[in-house]
Amino acid sequence: MKKIPESTVGRLSVYLRLLRDLSDRGVTTLSSEELAERSGTTAAQVRKDLSFFGTFGKRGLGYSVDELVRALRGIMGLEKTWRVALVGAGKIGTALLGYQDLRRQGFVIEAVFDRDPAKIGRRWNGLSIQPESQLEDALAGGIDIVIVAVPAEAAQGIVDRVVKSGVRAVLNFAPTRLTVPAGVTLKTVNMAAELEGLSYALVNEVWRGNDAEDARET
Amino acid sequence: MKKIPESTVGRLSVYLRLLRDLSDRGVTTLSSEELAERSGTTAAQVRKDLSFFGTFGKRGLGYSVDELVRALRGIMGLEKTWRVALVGAGKIGTALLGYQDLRRQGFVIEAVFDRDPAKIGRRWNGLSIQPESQLEDALAGGIDIVIVAVPAEAAQGIVDRVVKSGVRAVLNFAPTRLTVPAGVTLKTVNMAAELEGLSYALVNEVWRGNDAEDARET
Repeated sequence: MKKIPESTVGRLSVYLRLLRDLSDRGVTTLSSEELAERSGTTAAQVRKDLSFFGTFGKRGLGYSVDELVRALRGIMGLEKTWRVALVGAGKIGTALLGYQDLRRQGFVIEAVFDRDPAKIGRRWNGLSIQPESQLEDALAGGIDIVIVAVPAEAAQGIVDRVVKSGVRAVLNFAPTRLTVPAGVTLKTVNMAAELEGLSYALVNEVWRGNDAEDARET
Repeated sequence: MKKIPESTVGRLSVYLRLLRDLSDRGVTTLSSEELAERSGTTAAQVRKDLSFFGTFGKRGLGYSVDELVRALRGIMGLEKTWRVALVGAGKIGTALLGYQDLRRQGFVIEAVFDRDPAKIGRRWNGLSIQPESQLEDALAGGIDIVIVAVPAEAAQGIVDRVVKSGVRAVLNFAPTRLTVPAGVTLKTVNMAAELEGLSYALVNEVWRGNDAEDARET
């Protein structure tokens, strides 16, 4: 398979969410123009994004919503259940645990860790918070994705241990830049950096709107 | 001023956070190599990023940590206080309200809105949750940045009202793609899309590690 631009993968997520909503509302077909308009992109971009993965839709008839949902779920690896561990049971971690969409999309948090002795053993959503020292043991049980929600200064150390345990996908919420070796995918959700980007735009009067660069973030 | 790449602005946030930590620990100078290593980038990239904004550091002596912190705070617009409103007092909104770093960095949440009658009037962090219907009145009071943390299907409607009220910077947490007119900057924090990106990488064995594209997200 050709190397797919990361911006395409990001848009596939957006298309999938829209299509699922439409399916729930009983919509059965839609054109690339309609999908583009709802996604804030162009019909040409929609067609190009999908063309990486095969032929979808019929000229003049558009896409079958349910068929496209199934295809996108397959492409994105969302047909299986991903086993997730969360390191850091602070405010962000707690918000994540309560985020019902995660489970619906196949991301099941199976273990939660913290280093604060006062939190160890507390129960949340049917899980018991485990000491961070047991991370390696728990990850050996077959965790696919680790979410890191610890303070910035602790994050690289946690990621190093996670990677050593064989986990190949990490979602980082710590407001810092982390490094992982080849063979591991790291994504960072950095709210502080996004806010600072807004501050920068306001003082420098840089108005990016929804330009190509921003599209990657959505 | 030249158009600054958004990836540069993202790295400035990372540099600033690192430099502040170093300053807190009493470190007074550091080289571009040291800053690069801690930021997961190259010394050449550090020098290039900073060169957009002037001349920093002395050859052979490196950067003065405090001077660079001051300069970066000025460049990023972090010397002033930004007045922020939050729309959506759900789980994500609540986590944001409790995120102390925001205030320390000059982002002060001054108003919170929700459409759920059961939440209106409840107090949180010294604020009283206001009905969403009063959004326009409150924004007219001089809000700089609006954080949107409402369900996906409600987000575009809120953003349209926010933009009409004259706000030019929006941070969106709804898992959907929003559009704003020219003159407004929109940033999206989409945790679900990041997780789906990890799922995609796992099933397609695409290992991006910390490549150039990922650097934008950190």
